[in-house]
Amino acid sequence: MSFRYELVQQRGRTRRGRIHTPHGIIETPEFLPVGTQATVKALTPPQLRECGVQGLLANTYHLYLRPGSELVEKMGGLHRFMQWPGPIMTDSGGFQAFSLGAGREHGVGKIGGVFPGSNAKKPRGAVLPNMVKISEEGVRFRSHLDGSSHLLTPESSIRIQEELGADMILAFDECTSPLADKAYTENSLERTHRWALRCLEARRDTPQALYGILQGGAYPDLRQRTLDFMVPLPWQGFAVGGSLGKTKEEMHQVLDWTVPGLPDDKPRHLLGIGEFEDLFEGVARGIDTFDCVIPTRFARNGHVFVKPGTPGRSPRGTWNLLNARFRDLDQPIQSDCACYACQNFSLAYLRHLHKADEILAYTLGSMHNLHFLLTLMGDMRQALEEDRFETFRQSFFAPAS
Amino acid sequence: MSFRYELVQQRGRTRRGRIHTPHGIIETPEFLPVGTQATVKALTPPQLRECGVQGLLANTYHLYLRPGSELVEKMGGLHRFMQWPGPIMTDSGGFQAFSLGAGREHGVGKIGGVFPGSNAKKPRGAVLPNMVKISEEGVRFRSHLDGSSHLLTPESSIRIQEELGADMILAFDECTSPLADKAYTENSLERTHRWALRCLEARRDTPQALYGILQGGAYPDLRQRTLDFMVPLPWQGFAVGGSLGKTKEEMHQVLDWTVPGLPDDKPRHLLGIGEFEDLFEGVARGIDTFDCVIPTRFARNGHVFVKPGTPGRSPRGTWNLLNARFRDLDQPIQSDCACYACQNFSLAYLRHLHKADEILAYTLGSMHNLHFLLTLMGDMRQALEEDRFETFRQSFFAPAS
Repeated sequence: MSFRYELVQQRGRTRRGRIHTPHGIIETPEFLPVGTQATVKALTPPQLRECGVQGLLANTYHLYLRPGSELVEKMGGLHRFMQWPGPIMTDSGGFQAFSLGAGREHGVGKIGGVFPGSNAKKPRGAVLPNMVKISEEGVRFRSHLDGSSHLLTPESSIRIQEELGADMILAFDECTSPLADKAYTENSLERTHRWALRCLEARRDTPQALYGILQGGAYPDLRQRTLDFMVPLPWQGFAVGGSLGKTKEEMHQVLDWTVPGLPDDKPRHLLGIGEFEDLFEGVARGIDTFDCVIPTRFARNGHVFVKPGTPGRSPRGTWNLLNARFRDLDQPIQSDCACYACQNFSLAYLRHLHKADEILAYTLGSMHNLHFLLTLMGDMRQALEEDRFETFRQSFFAPAS
Repeated sequence: MSFRYELVQQRGRTRRGRIHTPHGIIETPEFLPVGTQATVKALTPPQLRECGVQGLLANTYHLYLRPGSELVEKMGGLHRFMQWPGPIMTDSGGFQAFSLGAGREHGVGKIGGVFPGSNAKKPRGAVLPNMVKISEEGVRFRSHLDGSSHLLTPESSIRIQEELGADMILAFDECTSPLADKAYTENSLERTHRWALRCLEARRDTPQALYGILQGGAYPDLRQRTLDFMVPLPWQGFAVGGSLGKTKEEMHQVLDWTVPGLPDDKPRHLLGIGEFEDLFEGVARGIDTFDCVIPTRFARNGHVFVKPGTPGRSPRGTWNLLNARFRDLDQPIQSDCACYACQNFSLAYLRHLHKADEILAYTLGSMHNLHFLLTLMGDMRQALEEDRFETFRQSFFAPAS
């Protein structure tokens, strides 16, 4: 099956769609969990299916460094290598090259954080940032694994992603810091545009869909400029990336400036975003797919999603399983949750597994968090179909009665 | 269903049997994987079933310290707590109190190693061994988790095991060192006998089967003495424990001295043993069940079982997945293995997961190793039924043709 986006229904700026890929369909809007190193951490492919996963995102930077994209290609591509039969997206590798490449400060993020070109203070003890070098050619960085030097260019990013063989691949871009000034952001945007043309030129005739990435920081005129430049180009989809501002409000504003300018017949991905509020805000603004490490990373830290209004819920929407009050609770995380963890195990057991650093804790927590988030996305799709998205959003965030 | 051992067939010293427990049947001879902290590491209960697991062993010492046996009882017992519906055995906690209790040297084992009463040199830097104190009353030790002081007695071990609620529980004993001299071993044996009587006295009216433990080190007269004392007592089964000698040959000798003196109508467990050769030697001598951490621990270290005669097989029967020669091998660990890992994943992928320290590596390796070992036990049972156990043993260890 060749790649195409099917617009099932459009109401205002919201849309309910269907992404057809060579490896099956993604009903949208949908969340794609992250399988950084060709595995969604702690879960088998059948467990991913059980959680309701339709598609996932793998990281080009990590897989290029280890095990190497030529190896993955030799093994028949990512789908066969990791035995995930459904749709896969890969990112361009740029974001991780900037943020993980040796010499970069840690703690960077899509919102806030410290980045090349930023005017923020360098943290104490950080290695010189000039170990990541951006030039017209591409990005030279050192591997976070062994310090070896690598050059990632638009051409090599496309080639690596073709070797990995995902269904959806992303153009190579620079993801600027939310703290970068306008001059830096503008220069970077122009280079990202030149890189975009090189990506289109470099791509070979594969069944892969190539998404263009829209940068421009939190500057409305730059966001408009990138729309003017990118939309006419022959992308199969678009990803909203890069600096999404310093706050959630700025991120929503970036979406307001960007998404309305995108064509109806191509899918839109929002990179690296996965908190509840942001998913709702993205869907309300016409985003089709999201990816984020949050559900699985939270789970490994003992944080599991609970509904808004649940007593003791953290600002990030979770319970901390290590909390002493769960010690002898003979009930699941959520009694009305259909996930494998909630159908079988008590909070007391989950807490015990976390206290004892048992691997099963990570598996069960990840299953709950993915199931929770993907059920939410399914509920959003149904609400869109039934023209009650805003009501659903309000009820989701309403305090428990 | 109440506990009983069904002798299906006896030939020479070998036997094919069936242990009926309140939580189902164990076809014997069989291997029980270890779920130390109420979880067989990295596997869900359905995955255990998929590997062919019939029953498992959990550790009283660990569960007493964390999460606490009262808590497990409050949660409905181990079966419900960990959602393992099949038979469970717990050990007495003694072995771990001696070997893990703060102040003990590390590196102890059922064969060889360093133990209380041993005349071996104390390793450099070891804490004073008198932090584990054995008295007539029981064993006082410090928790390896927080250094807190605990007293384990025959009465408390039985009470803890009743709270945990396993189907098969073990009498409290001292597991002497293979290096202990005869005087120490003899004194310890006499105390273990007095403890045995206290265990029988302490047990309440539960559906649990209480196994007596046969100690006596590598001394034939002590092994005979313990048979004379223990066999007439009202145990539902027997475990051969403690020092099994300094070498594998001494262990087999201990079995030769012990097993023939046991009654035909009660099951026999061999504690903490799980290497291929030892499983065959045990089955040949009439052992019904075994337990050992080897298959799951090996898997987490990247070592997976392969058949004897497989090129590059280590003396312990494994391949090391981290080996560079697996880097680009697009074939499973064993093409004729029916386990989930071999049915789906290449050696190249398994090696990648291990190199990347991915949790899925531990899950897949554990599935393979358990499936491998339990298939072997099933093949042994079939060979026993078809009166070709010795032929099967020889063919198993024969070089690949």
